[in-house]
Amino acid sequence: MGTAVTQSKKVNQVITPSELLMHWQGHRSLTRKVIEAFPEKEFFNHSIGGMRTFAEMAMELLGIAGPGIREIVTGKTAQLEEQFDHGKRKAKILELWDETTKEINTLWPQITVERFHESIKTFGQFDGTVQSSIFYFIDNEIHHRGQGYVYLRSLGVEPPMFWDRQGV
Amino acid sequence: MGTAVTQSKKVNQVITPSELLMHWQGHRSLTRKVIEAFPEKEFFNHSIGGMRTFAEMAMELLGIAGPGIREIVTGKTAQLEEQFDHGKRKAKILELWDETTKEINTLWPQITVERFHESIKTFGQFDGTVQSSIFYFIDNEIHHRGQGYVYLRSLGVEPPMFWDRQGV
Repeated sequence: MGTAVTQSKKVNQVITPSELLMHWQGHRSLTRKVIEAFPEKEFFNHSIGGMRTFAEMAMELLGIAGPGIREIVTGKTAQLEEQFDHGKRKAKILELWDETTKEINTLWPQITVERFHESIKTFGQFDGTVQSSIFYFIDNEIHHRGQGYVYLRSLGVEPPMFWDRQGV
Repeated sequence: MGTAVTQSKKVNQVITPSELLMHWQGHRSLTRKVIEAFPEKEFFNHSIGGMRTFAEMAMELLGIAGPGIREIVTGKTAQLEEQFDHGKRKAKILELWDETTKEINTLWPQITVERFHESIKTFGQFDGTVQSSIFYFIDNEIHHRGQGYVYLRSLGVEPPMFWDRQGV
């Protein structure tokens, strides 16, 4: 309790940049587990109600996360690219996922706390601030991952626990 | 642009308490639209893969949001209650939803910025800080709402747009 009180006096804000990074990477770690939980074939083929496959959703997330942070750091407009050459191999998507994890960790410290309220237009089309954009990236991931949970359940596969954000 | 620069100089943090409130209420507004989009009967009966109905998920969200914030503000341990007397009427759930919206707006300003890093145990069982708990409430809502989108699509109903966070 002593530590907590000390910390609460020091951190005079809702969430720090490094906490937000951990928060996001925790979610990304869970999404990675959801990708892993899919049977190889169904990852690329299964869908419900005319929606996209989870592979397509995962590629959307890959197309947003790395390029989105790179754009925030460099100021250079990113193109929204949602197709990756995966050869119907889940391992390829996971490889791209892990590269993105490293890229985010490398670029993140370059976003100073003062920049989070700067106005930006991500991917040349979405108006917001640095913080609203990053929260959009995270929330969009949680949203699609929740859909992946239904796909897994409909396949009879037990998804990872929602609170399990540990690991790569 | 002048305004944005001025603001970025003034707001030296990732997200302010009032922005986080707006962020959450924006998500709650979207979840309300998802509840409204369900046909009355299917809201209480439809499910996929042995999962809960969207009515049950909505009641979990009702059981967390108001009591969770009340607990953070008052320090009194809340009980996790996920059943509400709805008489199989969606209107009753929406009524409870709107009461919760008002309650959150009323209680929120009592959480000072210094408190967001205070250690707490929500519902007598979940260890975290004020901020990690509030983000958990929000993320859990996005997660289940994403599942609601699949239910709607499987019923042939077009869900609201994910970015549509305006309204009550």
